[in-house]
Amino acid sequence: MPQKSIDELDPVTNQMRKDAMEIFQSGLKAVSAFDAVGRHLRRTNEKLYIADKVFDLRHVNRIIVIGAGKATAAMAQAVEQILGKRISDGLISVKYGHGLPLKYIRTIEAGHPIPDQNGMKAARQMLDMVKNTSAHDLVLVLLSGGGSALMPLPVESITLEEKQTLSDLLIGCGATIHQINAVRKHISAIKGGKLAQAVLPSSLVTLIISDVVGDDLDVIASGPTVPDRSTYHQCRQITDHYNITRDLPKSVQKHIENGLKKQFPETPKVSSANWSHVSNVIIANNYQAILAASQKAGKKGYRNLILSSRIEGETRIVAQVHGAIAREAATTGNPAPPPLCLLSGGETTVTVGNGGCGGRNQEFALAAALDIQGVEKIVVLSAGTDGTDGPTDAAGAIADHTTVQRSQKAGLEPFEHLNHHNAYPFFKKLDDLLITGPSQTNVMDLRIILVR
Amino acid sequence: MPQKSIDELDPVTNQMRKDAMEIFQSGLKAVSAFDAVGRHLRRTNEKLYIADKVFDLRHVNRIIVIGAGKATAAMAQAVEQILGKRISDGLISVKYGHGLPLKYIRTIEAGHPIPDQNGMKAARQMLDMVKNTSAHDLVLVLLSGGGSALMPLPVESITLEEKQTLSDLLIGCGATIHQINAVRKHISAIKGGKLAQAVLPSSLVTLIISDVVGDDLDVIASGPTVPDRSTYHQCRQITDHYNITRDLPKSVQKHIENGLKKQFPETPKVSSANWSHVSNVIIANNYQAILAASQKAGKKGYRNLILSSRIEGETRIVAQVHGAIAREAATTGNPAPPPLCLLSGGETTVTVGNGGCGGRNQEFALAAALDIQGVEKIVVLSAGTDGTDGPTDAAGAIADHTTVQRSQKAGLEPFEHLNHHNAYPFFKKLDDLLITGPSQTNVMDLRIILVR
Repeated sequence: MPQKSIDELDPVTNQMRKDAMEIFQSGLKAVSAFDAVGRHLRRTNEKLYIADKVFDLRHVNRIIVIGAGKATAAMAQAVEQILGKRISDGLISVKYGHGLPLKYIRTIEAGHPIPDQNGMKAARQMLDMVKNTSAHDLVLVLLSGGGSALMPLPVESITLEEKQTLSDLLIGCGATIHQINAVRKHISAIKGGKLAQAVLPSSLVTLIISDVVGDDLDVIASGPTVPDRSTYHQCRQITDHYNITRDLPKSVQKHIENGLKKQFPETPKVSSANWSHVSNVIIANNYQAILAASQKAGKKGYRNLILSSRIEGETRIVAQVHGAIAREAATTGNPAPPPLCLLSGGETTVTVGNGGCGGRNQEFALAAALDIQGVEKIVVLSAGTDGTDGPTDAAGAIADHTTVQRSQKAGLEPFEHLNHHNAYPFFKKLDDLLITGPSQTNVMDLRIILVR
Repeated sequence: MPQKSIDELDPVTNQMRKDAMEIFQSGLKAVSAFDAVGRHLRRTNEKLYIADKVFDLRHVNRIIVIGAGKATAAMAQAVEQILGKRISDGLISVKYGHGLPLKYIRTIEAGHPIPDQNGMKAARQMLDMVKNTSAHDLVLVLLSGGGSALMPLPVESITLEEKQTLSDLLIGCGATIHQINAVRKHISAIKGGKLAQAVLPSSLVTLIISDVVGDDLDVIASGPTVPDRSTYHQCRQITDHYNITRDLPKSVQKHIENGLKKQFPETPKVSSANWSHVSNVIIANNYQAILAASQKAGKKGYRNLILSSRIEGETRIVAQVHGAIAREAATTGNPAPPPLCLLSGGETTVTVGNGGCGGRNQEFALAAALDIQGVEKIVVLSAGTDGTDGPTDAAGAIADHTTVQRSQKAGLEPFEHLNHHNAYPFFKKLDDLLITGPSQTNVMDLRIILVR
């Protein structure tokens, strides 16, 4: 935990930095994947309570656990602790190196963010596991951020490479996440509600740790257990709109054409398919983390203001707006007077030019540092709840009103580092990186700004 | 005032739109240049009160009024109403077409934002008017946004064209406003405190309507009556840093070299010059407008939250952040529950690619409209307090959660308009432009977001 010596920083600022760390940790704790499962899955000898559903364990035959995502290993551990031997079969797909010891549920480690054959193998096995279930069985699905890439299963006529080419085309042309997902779901054998339909007639409960703004069930892991709202017709409109229809792999073109000719079924819709056996439950999200963080801030004597849990946009500008609000608080006591803790969450973006080393949270802290320099006394912490920020070993960074001055003393040029998206070496030299290691959860980013 | 028929919009949204307009008008009224002067300049037969200074009119010989800026004509009218025949001489420089009827103070209309010979003529005359004043005279300076361009006076060896070349180089290389001002002040005969020194030994009061974030006296109209903090040495560092030293006009290079060799005096510093005769008074700023707007919102039954009066950054992203806060309020009641009025001010920027027609406020409203579409019920108003937004006849625009839907019905493509910075025709077709005409004040932009 980066904490400056009192020689370098005044005691108040030092205390604020310490407070910011503790507030962040409280937020993180509230969305621990393990605890979140524990809160939503309770059992007695006879009954199993999942969110608002009750299952009589005496009448449940098999319980099958499947899932994919960065936090899914910890979710699986919690499920094992609660259900133990009652688990008949289980398989999860997690990122390489993210496996955890499990007794009843098998783990396949696979590629993320670029999907690979291991992920496909896992997805195929999961689909096979649930296909022959009966009405007396229960399928438990554990989803978290990254679940889409870790569970790729294109329809038979399309290879994983072709699916990847499609993804690259869609991302490259500027399509929105909803447009990308619409097309992806239509070439998948498991996404867009297809997993839920494969599970029939058994019951299905999906526990979800949300890593998307607005907690859109449709979007998280491309909604394998959620009705789809998009159509083949829209897929064609989208690829036409971005002028990429002719660039699509032949197999993808053919598949969409078959879909348009009704030679291949539509994704299951809310009205066209049976969903009475399905429950989707969000067990942790960004807002819960912010709420817990704000409560901790309150205990530490700060007034709280949650700005928003759904902040998106180019990091540098988003940081400027946060800085402007903090400076207003320090100067006029708006939107609330100090001691104040401003909180926000969501996921910003960095449009990388010629790439330095950093991540969106470190860049946020650097841009904010430039904005608040010399304004007494402001501390800014920005970090990813999954413990990683960009391709670095840090979760984020911490900055204050003295950061720019200290950096210049250390021979650093903050503007240069910002312009080159090179925040990692900047904060490393100042010993102001926030390093938590993999946190086994993932509810996007938290930003904590303290003003005194 | 754009107000939809009840057929097109539900009554609640219609009322919110009306409220937003009234709240904006209240903000505007609070910073009226005419009223602001009236609040800070009071007289009896014998005494003249200006902010915290008192002048005994029986011992004041001449009163000379000079000034420059977009709102300075209205300021001059107020001064005439209060001082009338006591004005011995007066001259102001305003934008072409912005003159108002005056009796004792002459008006020169000049180029803005590109300075021209008329502005230079005005600046030279002003300097001449104050040079031969005595200790019994009082000089009143009226500054508002645009004052710098309307009062250009480079030192004798530099032409206006060369000064303009310098400005273009500094803006083009990415120098900050403080860096640009540092260099500008050092080649000016009137900026950077030089006007204040020319006025000696007479008293000087400058009334200022601030159009800059943070109300930095140094920055407004390049601080003609404020001590300068920058040096010739820094000017050289700045032009070296941006690698433009050799591109500077020869006359500018020569002048800076002479300054470095102390063959030309430094700008007056706080310690090296006499400032006891000088008062600088900010009589209106963005925060006052926001505060008045928030009070009006309170009377209309909205909870108020002033986010910040100092918001800067790329409009589109700034709008996204505001949208995220409004959506959070509508969904979780944070940062405060509806009915809520979120207010912010400052001046955002639009990085124009291939230029459509619009301004930063109209673009804000369009980007916000895309962000809040379908979220009931949100109204967003963004407008410039000077009555103009970019090169258009509108001050800004008003949007709500139905704007995108209505625009699509009207055959408009909101994303296309946003991407091409073409918000003006978009809002014109929807009849959602906010057209106020020149407002005779200028305290940057106001944004009002209502959430129900």
